[in-house]
Amino acid sequence: MRMYDIIAKKRDKKELTTEEINEFVNGYVKGEIPDYQASALLMAIYLNGMTERETFDLTTVMMRSGDLVDLSPIEGVKVDKHSTGGVGDKTSLIVGPIVAACGVKVAKMSGRGLGHTGGTVDKLESIPGFKTALDRDEFFDVVNKTGISVIGQSGDLAPADKKLYALRDVTATIESIPLIASSIMSKKLAAGADCIVLDVKTGSGAFMKTVEDSVKLAQEMVKLGENAGRRTCALITDMDVPLGRNIGNSLEVIEAVETLKGNGPEDLTHEALYLAANMLEVAGKGDEKECLKMAKEAIDNGSALECLAQMVKAQGGDESVIRDTGNFAKAAFSHEIRSPYEGYIAHMDTEGCGIASMMLGAGRETLDSVIDMAAGIVIEKKTGDHIKRGDLIATLYANDKALFDKAEKKYLDSLKISDGEVKRNPLIYAKVSKEGVQYND
Amino acid sequence: MRMYDIIAKKRDKKELTTEEINEFVNGYVKGEIPDYQASALLMAIYLNGMTERETFDLTTVMMRSGDLVDLSPIEGVKVDKHSTGGVGDKTSLIVGPIVAACGVKVAKMSGRGLGHTGGTVDKLESIPGFKTALDRDEFFDVVNKTGISVIGQSGDLAPADKKLYALRDVTATIESIPLIASSIMSKKLAAGADCIVLDVKTGSGAFMKTVEDSVKLAQEMVKLGENAGRRTCALITDMDVPLGRNIGNSLEVIEAVETLKGNGPEDLTHEALYLAANMLEVAGKGDEKECLKMAKEAIDNGSALECLAQMVKAQGGDESVIRDTGNFAKAAFSHEIRSPYEGYIAHMDTEGCGIASMMLGAGRETLDSVIDMAAGIVIEKKTGDHIKRGDLIATLYANDKALFDKAEKKYLDSLKISDGEVKRNPLIYAKVSKEGVQYND
Repeated sequence: MRMYDIIAKKRDKKELTTEEINEFVNGYVKGEIPDYQASALLMAIYLNGMTERETFDLTTVMMRSGDLVDLSPIEGVKVDKHSTGGVGDKTSLIVGPIVAACGVKVAKMSGRGLGHTGGTVDKLESIPGFKTALDRDEFFDVVNKTGISVIGQSGDLAPADKKLYALRDVTATIESIPLIASSIMSKKLAAGADCIVLDVKTGSGAFMKTVEDSVKLAQEMVKLGENAGRRTCALITDMDVPLGRNIGNSLEVIEAVETLKGNGPEDLTHEALYLAANMLEVAGKGDEKECLKMAKEAIDNGSALECLAQMVKAQGGDESVIRDTGNFAKAAFSHEIRSPYEGYIAHMDTEGCGIASMMLGAGRETLDSVIDMAAGIVIEKKTGDHIKRGDLIATLYANDKALFDKAEKKYLDSLKISDGEVKRNPLIYAKVSKEGVQYND
Repeated sequence: MRMYDIIAKKRDKKELTTEEINEFVNGYVKGEIPDYQASALLMAIYLNGMTERETFDLTTVMMRSGDLVDLSPIEGVKVDKHSTGGVGDKTSLIVGPIVAACGVKVAKMSGRGLGHTGGTVDKLESIPGFKTALDRDEFFDVVNKTGISVIGQSGDLAPADKKLYALRDVTATIESIPLIASSIMSKKLAAGADCIVLDVKTGSGAFMKTVEDSVKLAQEMVKLGENAGRRTCALITDMDVPLGRNIGNSLEVIEAVETLKGNGPEDLTHEALYLAANMLEVAGKGDEKECLKMAKEAIDNGSALECLAQMVKAQGGDESVIRDTGNFAKAAFSHEIRSPYEGYIAHMDTEGCGIASMMLGAGRETLDSVIDMAAGIVIEKKTGDHIKRGDLIATLYANDKALFDKAEKKYLDSLKISDGEVKRNPLIYAKVSKEGVQYND
């Protein structure tokens, strides 16, 4: 009845000991604690919260439940970046090469997409020949040679988190700040980087719908990282509108490459530069201002683009699509969405835009769905823009014409139109580091 | 994902609709909703509560999940009594015959004991030959003939409650007032009586440890009964000390018979008379004062004892043990507990006394345990009594001498001794009816 007592303790708002948290997580992983007891405890945690110490213990035991990646065969400082997930978020493809070009190593394991958000691994697989499954030695070799490698999650990282997350997903216990923070950080810490930058998305396309909650989540995660001895900071960035213009796998690689060439959309370029600068800062390359300058130079002098091309080549990919994005396979059909309204785009339901792209074949509805690499959306008008009847709002791409109708409807339903002018959200709301929270004006 | 939404709604402190509650309970009974989702919802209900309407809906759907007993073949008003369970609580064996002797029918299905509390059905089975498993027609015949029958729960009463209770029992979600109230009332309403008296125990031997919580539970249950069209009232009675002197199955039948003969201990007699009076009152026999007079007369004129004897005979039991309790089989061994202290008994941990009795063989530790009908405890000194070193505090009875040591230790550990005089608790704290709460001075 030990697990019973642990549930009752958290139910009664008492603090669990390290031993009790370990017993719960290890017992659950071993199958000694049944799902129904674990879910009762998760709901009690959701409603009664966890202290900083409890969250740290939960993170630690989940991290230790599987492999701990040892990145020491890679020379120099290794930095990792994690985004809480968004629509059109291709920043990893941009910031990784920038940071590597500035001399900080990026040995990154990324995930696949599900639902309305995409995954970096899926995007990279739109590059012909690109291998996202490397063994550990190949992975280290690519990083040592090119400064960067991005692969799919390999090995058995934080299996306890995986099992608990699956249970939370069906018991309405996902959106708990200590549970999200420990879930993300257990994997990040197990992945072995020396320093970590977290991109915490906020708004209609994100887990966290308010800046306040995003700051809280960021603070928890920064504390977890710092307490584990990793330099960690977080940016709170807007996900109340898709980032950049392109949604979809090869479409996002194309936009990332354009950004590395200096031709990216303003919002994406700005956000990528700040994320890269913060990665360089936590890696000890200087203060944020100096690092921002370095990051800009890596774009201006082409070294960041070159890093990406080298990584693609080293991982077996067709470098020519990076040199000339026109070489990417195109979708068989395209469809223009023309505005039925006149006015200002007051709001975009970003999750809705992501779902529209998924409907075109660009994302997974279930874990088994097959992705259409060329499908997706190119956005022409975004929140704050004025539109007239008949204006091109977006172009849909798919390999099956029949998909356009529903996706167009979903996309249009995601837009809110107003008569008056609309203020755009800031791109970056705040920075959270061990020094505290710094809000942008 | 419907169940997911129901969990999320209660998690977010919103009121569930009738349809949602039905969907949860019916889906869970059918096995369509897994344990882990049900337990997450139960924890959310435990922590966020339920409205009066939700509790009524939960009670109704659990009641309807199985058989609804139709007592109409029994003539006249049928009254039921339910106790939330206590140690030494043999009142059902006393109040049933009293009420029947006063012309109100008692067609009662009772439970078995588990842990530190006993069950009426177990106690009755200490009478040689007594059958607690009658079919419906036999049951009705006995009631029509003798005015009373007590049998084990037959048929499939509120199976939804049974399944949910088993889950609550292992997920630390038992002690929730709306969940306890709906659990008890779903079974009571399904059992078919026209009116119901609830005996809500409070104190160290009860579910509810405070009078305040007991009143809340009673109010919920009275509302549930009245809203279902049954006259319902509740007494809040003390269970901070065992009721009467005897704990154990045949020992409790003996004490009940003595009480029906007018020789019972004061506390047990008093409480039984008030419970019987309230049963007569909800059945429309007069006001509480008039009914109390009737109940006393049924003891004084021997008609209540006669009712018990007739029921025992009609259910195949050996009537002679009622006529002369000396005919009960006795335990092979007895052991006197002598006081190692001098002072006043300041408190008895009533649950501890019940466990000591269970250790002697009188109760079940698990569902499969076999009960020793003659085992138990006869208490000589209770809370408030003065004791000197060497005084007889209690006598233990068992058929295995080896059991005395541990049981004596447990019993003595349950006593708190003080130097100064101690005030006894009231026996009956309050009465809860649709008119409101009436506290005793």
